[in-house]
Amino acid sequence: NDCSWAWDDHYLEKDNLWETIREEIERDCATEPMLSSFLFSTVLAHATIEESLAFILANKLESTVLPATQLLQLFHETLMLDEIRAGFLADLLATYDRDPACKQYSSCLLFYKGFHAIQIHRVAHHLYKKGRVGLAMLLQSRSSETFHVDIHPAARIGKGVMLDHATGVVMGESAVVGDNVSMLHHVTLGGSGKSAGDRHPKIGSGVLIGAGAVVLGNVRVGNCSKIGAGSVVLADVPPRHVAVGVPARNIPLSGISGSSP
Amino acid sequence: NDCSWAWDDHYLEKDNLWETIREEIERDCATEPMLSSFLFSTVLAHATIEESLAFILANKLESTVLPATQLLQLFHETLMLDEIRAGFLADLLATYDRDPACKQYSSCLLFYKGFHAIQIHRVAHHLYKKGRVGLAMLLQSRSSETFHVDIHPAARIGKGVMLDHATGVVMGESAVVGDNVSMLHHVTLGGSGKSAGDRHPKIGSGVLIGAGAVVLGNVRVGNCSKIGAGSVVLADVPPRHVAVGVPARNIPLSGISGSSP
Amino acid sequence: NDCSWAWDDHYLEKDNLWETIREEIERDCATEPMLSSFLFSTVLAHATIEESLAFILANKLESTVLPATQLLQLFHETLMLDEIRAGFLADLLATYDRDPACKQYSSCLLFYKGFHAIQIHRVAHHLYKKGRVGLAMLLQSRSSETFHVDIHPAARIGKGVMLDHATGVVMGESAVVGDNVSMLHHVTLGGSGKSAGDRHPKIGSGVLIGAGAVVLGNVRVGNCSKIGAGSVVLADVPPRHVAVGVPARNIPLSGISGSSP
Repeated sequence: NDCSWAWDDHYLEKDNLWETIREEIERDCATEPMLSSFLFSTVLAHATIEESLAFILANKLESTVLPATQLLQLFHETLMLDEIRAGFLADLLATYDRDPACKQYSSCLLFYKGFHAIQIHRVAHHLYKKGRVGLAMLLQSRSSETFHVDIHPAARIGKGVMLDHATGVVMGESAVVGDNVSMLHHVTLGGSGKSAGDRHPKIGSGVLIGAGAVVLGNVRVGNCSKIGAGSVVLADVPPRHVAVGVPARNIPLSGISGSSP
Repeated sequence: NDCSWAWDDHYLEKDNLWETIREEIERDCATEPMLSSFLFSTVLAHATIEESLAFILANKLESTVLPATQLLQLFHETLMLDEIRAGFLADLLATYDRDPACKQYSSCLLFYKGFHAIQIHRVAHHLYKKGRVGLAMLLQSRSSETFHVDIHPAARIGKGVMLDHATGVVMGESAVVGDNVSMLHHVTLGGSGKSAGDRHPKIGSGVLIGAGAVVLGNVRVGNCSKIGAGSVVLADVPPRHVAVGVPARNIPLSGISGSSP
Repeated sequence: NDCSWAWDDHYLEKDNLWETIREEIERDCATEPMLSSFLFSTVLAHATIEESLAFILANKLESTVLPATQLLQLFHETLMLDEIRAGFLADLLATYDRDPACKQYSSCLLFYKGFHAIQIHRVAHHLYKKGRVGLAMLLQSRSSETFHVDIHPAARIGKGVMLDHATGVVMGESAVVGDNVSMLHHVTLGGSGKSAGDRHPKIGSGVLIGAGAVVLGNVRVGNCSKIGAGSVVLADVPPRHVAVGVPARNIPLSGISGSSP
C-alpha cells in the first residue's frame, strides 16, 4: 500500500492467523472464566476460521422466522470460496492494522460489527451475482437491522476494507469501493436521484472517508484520497487530494501531511 | 402529485396489491426453496395484507419480556382501521415508486426497516391519541432499538411517506410531516431547545430531505421543497426551494431542475 | 449547575426515586393491563432500583451465546457500587429534567436506549479498569449492536450525562466527558488519526452537543459551551462559547442567549 495515510503493514502472515486467534482466546478463557462458554462456542469449538465466522454471523442474523442452522450452512459454504476467504482475511488484518483500539485479532472477529457487516455483504453479493436476489436482499435487510449497515447486494467492495464503528453506513446499488479503503461511521455512498442505472460513487483504493461524510452520485474519488468528516462530496475528487466542506472542495494532499479526517 | 422531483405515479391499484404480493412470493418460493418457510410464515400463511404485516412487525418487535402473541393482536386490530390501512398502503406504493432499488412490492413489505418503522409509528400514534401513552412509548422504544428510527408517538405523519435506509431518523413530539414526503437516513426533525410546547419542524407535502439533514425548531418547510444532504436548517424554507449548507440558505427550485439532494 | 442552558434543577431527592418509580408503574399497570406482565417483570418484581436496572439491561444484552442469567449477576453487583450507583441515579434525574418529552422517571429507566447505553458503559469501564478487558469489550460490542452507541470502555464519563435519542453516538478510547453533559444522536468524539495515545476530545462540564456534531482529536471543549448541530470541531472551544459550522468557529455565548443547537 503506497498511500500516505497507511499505518504500518508488517502484519501477520495469513497462514498463522487462525492459530494466533486460538491462542489469544485460550489466554482470554484462562483469565476470564465468565467468558469461557461464550469463547468456546464462538471460536474454540471450530476447526477453521471459516467455520467460526459462519457460526458467529449465523447467530447474529437469526430471527424467529429464520433459524441459525439454515444460515450456518449457507455462510460456511460461501466463506470457503477462495475470493470470499481472501476478502474476509484481508479485512480482518486491515482492521487490526489500522484501528489502534484493536489489540487482538480475535477482537475483530468477535466484536466488530463493521467487520461482520462486510462479510454478510460478501455472502450477499455472491448470491446476488448467481441470481439468488431474494436471499441476498434478506441478508441485506437483516444486516441493516443487526449491524446498522445497509449495503445493496449489487455493490462491489474490494479487499482490506475497514468500517470503523460502522453505525449508519449506507452504500447504494451501483457503488464501488476499492481495496484498502477505510471508512468511519455514518458514511453514505448514495444515489444522484436518477431513477435507475449507474448512479452511485466509485471509491478508489486506499481512500479514507471520515465520520458522517456523504458522497452522492456517480462521482470518482481517486486512489489515496481522503474525505473529511461531515463533508458532502458531489463531484470527482482527484487522486491524493482531501475533500472537505459542505459542499466539499478538493485540496492536494501534498503539503498537508499529518492531517486526518 | 405535482412536485417536480416525483417519479412516475402510474402505480398499481391498491385493490390488486395483496394479490400481486402473493404472486411475487410464490415465484420467489419456487426459485429459492431455502426461503420457502420464511416466506410462508410471513406472507403466504395469511389471508390479508394487514394480517401479514401484523405478523412481520410483531416478530420484529417481540423481546424476552414482550411476547409476539400480545403484539400480534394489537397490530392486527389497529392496521385494520381505515386511516391506518390507507397510510400503510400509500407508504408501500410510494416506496415501490420512488426507490429504484425496490423491484417488487413484497420487498418493501418484508425488508424495508423504514417502512416497518413508520407503520409502528402509525400504531403508536393511534394509541397515543387514545390516551394509551405507556404502550405508545413502549412501541417507540422498541422501534428505536429494532429499526434505529426514533419517532415520538405524538408526531403527525401523512400518507405516502418513505424513509429510505432509515438508520438514525429522529422526529420530535410536535413534528408534522405532510403527504408524499421522502427522507433519507440520519434525518433529524428536532427541537429548538424550548422546554415544552410546539418546538419541532412542520414539513410540507412532496418534500424530499437528503441524508444527514438536520431541521431544528418550529420552522416550516414548504410543499415540494428539497433539503440537501448534510444541511442544517434553522429557518423557514419557502415552497419549491432547495435549502443547502450549514446553516442552510434557500434557492428557488426553478432554474436548477435535475438537481437532487 | 451554573450553565446558562440548564433547565430547572429542583428535582426529586435521590432517596425517593425508587418509591416514585414504583408508584408511576403501579398507576400504569392499572390503566394499561396489556403492559402489566412487562411492568411486573421489569420493575415491580424487584426490591431495589439496582436489581430492576440489572434485569432490564441483562434482558436487552443477552444473545444466543450469552445468557441473561450470567449478565444479571454481573450487572447487579456492579450497579451496587457507590460510584456506579451515583452515576446512574444522576443520569436518570438529568434525563427527566432536561428532556421535555420525558414525563415520568420510569420512562427513562424502561425506554431510553441512551440511558441504557451509558449504564452498560459504566459497568464496562469498571471492568476495564480492573483489567477485565475481554468482558468489557464484549459489553461494548453488545451495546453497539443493541443501542447503536459505541463507547470504548476506557473512555471516562461524568455524572448526570444524557444521550438524547442516542443512535450513532461514538466515543473513542481516550475521550473524557464531564458532569452534566447532554448530547444528541450521531455525536462523535473521535480520534485525530494518531495511531495511539491520547487522541480523543475532552468535553467540559455542562456542555451541550447538537445532533450530528463531530469533534475530532485531543481538543478541549470548555465548561458550559455548546456545539451546534452538524458542526465539525477540530480545535479547542473556550468555556461559554458556541462552536458552529464545518469547520466550526467559536462565538462567545454572551449576547446570543436563547440560541440552542
